[in-house]
Amino acid sequence: MQHEQAIITLLTDFGLTDVYVGAMKGVILSRCPGAVIVDLTHAVEPGNLHTAAYLLGVAWHHFPKGTVHTVVVDPGVGSDRRILAARVYGQIMLAPDNGVLSRVFEDCEPEMVVSVENNALFLQPVSNTFHGRDIFAPVAAALAGGAPLDQLGPVVDHWVHLPKIEPWRREDGRLEGQVVHIDSFGNLITNIESTDVPKSLHVEINGYAIAGLQQSYAEVDLGQPLAIIGSGGRLEVSVNEGHAADRFNANVGTAVFVAHAGIEEV
Amino acid sequence: MQHEQAIITLLTDFGLTDVYVGAMKGVILSRCPGAVIVDLTHAVEPGNLHTAAYLLGVAWHHFPKGTVHTVVVDPGVGSDRRILAARVYGQIMLAPDNGVLSRVFEDCEPEMVVSVENNALFLQPVSNTFHGRDIFAPVAAALAGGAPLDQLGPVVDHWVHLPKIEPWRREDGRLEGQVVHIDSFGNLITNIESTDVPKSLHVEINGYAIAGLQQSYAEVDLGQPLAIIGSGGRLEVSVNEGHAADRFNANVGTAVFVAHAGIEEV
Amino acid sequence: MQHEQAIITLLTDFGLTDVYVGAMKGVILSRCPGAVIVDLTHAVEPGNLHTAAYLLGVAWHHFPKGTVHTVVVDPGVGSDRRILAARVYGQIMLAPDNGVLSRVFEDCEPEMVVSVENNALFLQPVSNTFHGRDIFAPVAAALAGGAPLDQLGPVVDHWVHLPKIEPWRREDGRLEGQVVHIDSFGNLITNIESTDVPKSLHVEINGYAIAGLQQSYAEVDLGQPLAIIGSGGRLEVSVNEGHAADRFNANVGTAVFVAHAGIEEV
Repeated sequence: MQHEQAIITLLTDFGLTDVYVGAMKGVILSRCPGAVIVDLTHAVEPGNLHTAAYLLGVAWHHFPKGTVHTVVVDPGVGSDRRILAARVYGQIMLAPDNGVLSRVFEDCEPEMVVSVENNALFLQPVSNTFHGRDIFAPVAAALAGGAPLDQLGPVVDHWVHLPKIEPWRREDGRLEGQVVHIDSFGNLITNIESTDVPKSLHVEINGYAIAGLQQSYAEVDLGQPLAIIGSGGRLEVSVNEGHAADRFNANVGTAVFVAHAGIEEV
Repeated sequence: MQHEQAIITLLTDFGLTDVYVGAMKGVILSRCPGAVIVDLTHAVEPGNLHTAAYLLGVAWHHFPKGTVHTVVVDPGVGSDRRILAARVYGQIMLAPDNGVLSRVFEDCEPEMVVSVENNALFLQPVSNTFHGRDIFAPVAAALAGGAPLDQLGPVVDHWVHLPKIEPWRREDGRLEGQVVHIDSFGNLITNIESTDVPKSLHVEINGYAIAGLQQSYAEVDLGQPLAIIGSGGRLEVSVNEGHAADRFNANVGTAVFVAHAGIEEV
Repeated sequence: MQHEQAIITLLTDFGLTDVYVGAMKGVILSRCPGAVIVDLTHAVEPGNLHTAAYLLGVAWHHFPKGTVHTVVVDPGVGSDRRILAARVYGQIMLAPDNGVLSRVFEDCEPEMVVSVENNALFLQPVSNTFHGRDIFAPVAAALAGGAPLDQLGPVVDHWVHLPKIEPWRREDGRLEGQVVHIDSFGNLITNIESTDVPKSLHVEINGYAIAGLQQSYAEVDLGQPLAIIGSGGRLEVSVNEGHAADRFNANVGTAVFVAHAGIEEV
């Protein structure tokens, strides 16, 4: 496998106040000179597998084939949890076997998944607390340099999966979904696909009602709420130049109800 | 246009907790392999055009010719606001037409400005909420790869301008300026140019008086305030190893008065 | 000196909300096209030399030979404090002479140290407040491009050293160390080396006792404290999926006592 550019992305909960990410980059550049390293984010709440899985799921497919996506949100570091490497649609995923690849695997069935066990690739000695530096970084470097998956360890055919919560149709005809992510603007991203959203709708969240589906934030006045199809193709609840999560006191998991406008409003 | 290196800078209000910036980088690296991507900052307060304009204004001229500066502070995303691409002193600016290029254009008149309308360059389908990924990233990649400006859309000759607030000479002889930016150290950057600052001066801010102009922070004791010419060539008010904004209860817009030391002190 | 890749790391207290780091990168890319720039961190508490020294000390040796590590935690900027460039084990350090290289120099005696005085390399005019942009960035670029150390200024043989605080053996037989760093997970990194840690031990911190040394976080229940050898080879106090600093009300400098399990527990 020859790449025009060896791209490695990093998605961790390490934050940016320490040099954990920097140490990983040092190892990568030592093992794969010329690698292009892209930070997806390092601000995942410590150990939050659902957020990590969500964020990887919305970002991965924008990268070129051959990219190695490296996820180190890994509360089980040092335990006997496995580390997986997977090929998915020409890209490579490297992550602990704790479910953080769930959204990727739902988008696109993996072509091959292996358990990373070839410790000849690891930094020695392997610490018990920082596999990001000692295992993930050198293995990502090897993969970006063209190492075949089956050099890393045996093929596996099952792994940890974080269940996807699907919206469902209530007896009253409304679709009930929920907030799956809140971005830094306070936008509420739901699990309701655009294909399930009528053009003429009412949205209800925490007792607040929002009428109609907008094409842009600017279609409502400053500070007014709106429903819109977001960049991931799902229904989002926003406030024009405001913070929807604060406004509606919403969290990940908050229920969102969608009704056809013809149905009596809540 | 051939570049030794294709450099793209990013200046957004996307924060670093989401993968919006990461998705933009994926698109850029897909469209312009080998691009060098530099984060100017992603921590602009959401929608704050003045801060974005200020920060771009102090950073852009330190980059090599051919650099593509990409600003996505864009509360009007999805509306009919235009997107501008401009050539300025051998560098390229790509930004919404909302005034964020004002400080650059005051430094240096643009050689050519176009309205970005060639949707053959855009990611399809274009979302209504994330033009950073769908328009700015692929267009920046095209520009960094050498696409001529006039391939993007028609030349335009007017655009939104954020007025610059100039200091003025009061009847009492003092120069009245204001704080235009507060950095993360708490330093107060004013709009008063070094050429308007006498060597022997008194500065007043929120009723506090500071005597003299220092050459370095260390010329005053720890915790003491000082006036100094900052790295942008303007008067700044600082506290040696302290936080001037907190000390003087100052904000962007707070008035700063400069008098010759010979004039009676406030 | 020819490098396959010119790598420059940056470690500053500039934060990520301003464009100070971005301006440095612009200067570096202008002077050393193709340089690979790695952010170690920019979130050092303003002026905190001990944190800067600690973080550089744990990261530097993971980078390839020829890397230029650039530290701009520099409360004395603009004063007559010197700037040092040093060659250590095939890597280059560039930093103010304020002690931030202390931990590196303890790991590995520098082969050559010079005082950076060759202002032909600096950006002109040199500001009084931003040597990161005007001196450190262009000098780092020159070094990464292969400039020999002695082109920068005269060799020096003394410099500022931040004392290392060593653990000591108390009369009661216990080893008394202290917390030297708290990471973003809340883990307490101590100055007690793994070689001084018995397999069977009791740790005491702020009146709390922890029994035994664990091999991974997962060896204790969720929310339970543990002692472990961290990724830097030193004793750390952690809480499995929790925040040890909050739990134990610990700060940098908090005393940590280690006893053999055979010794009566506190």
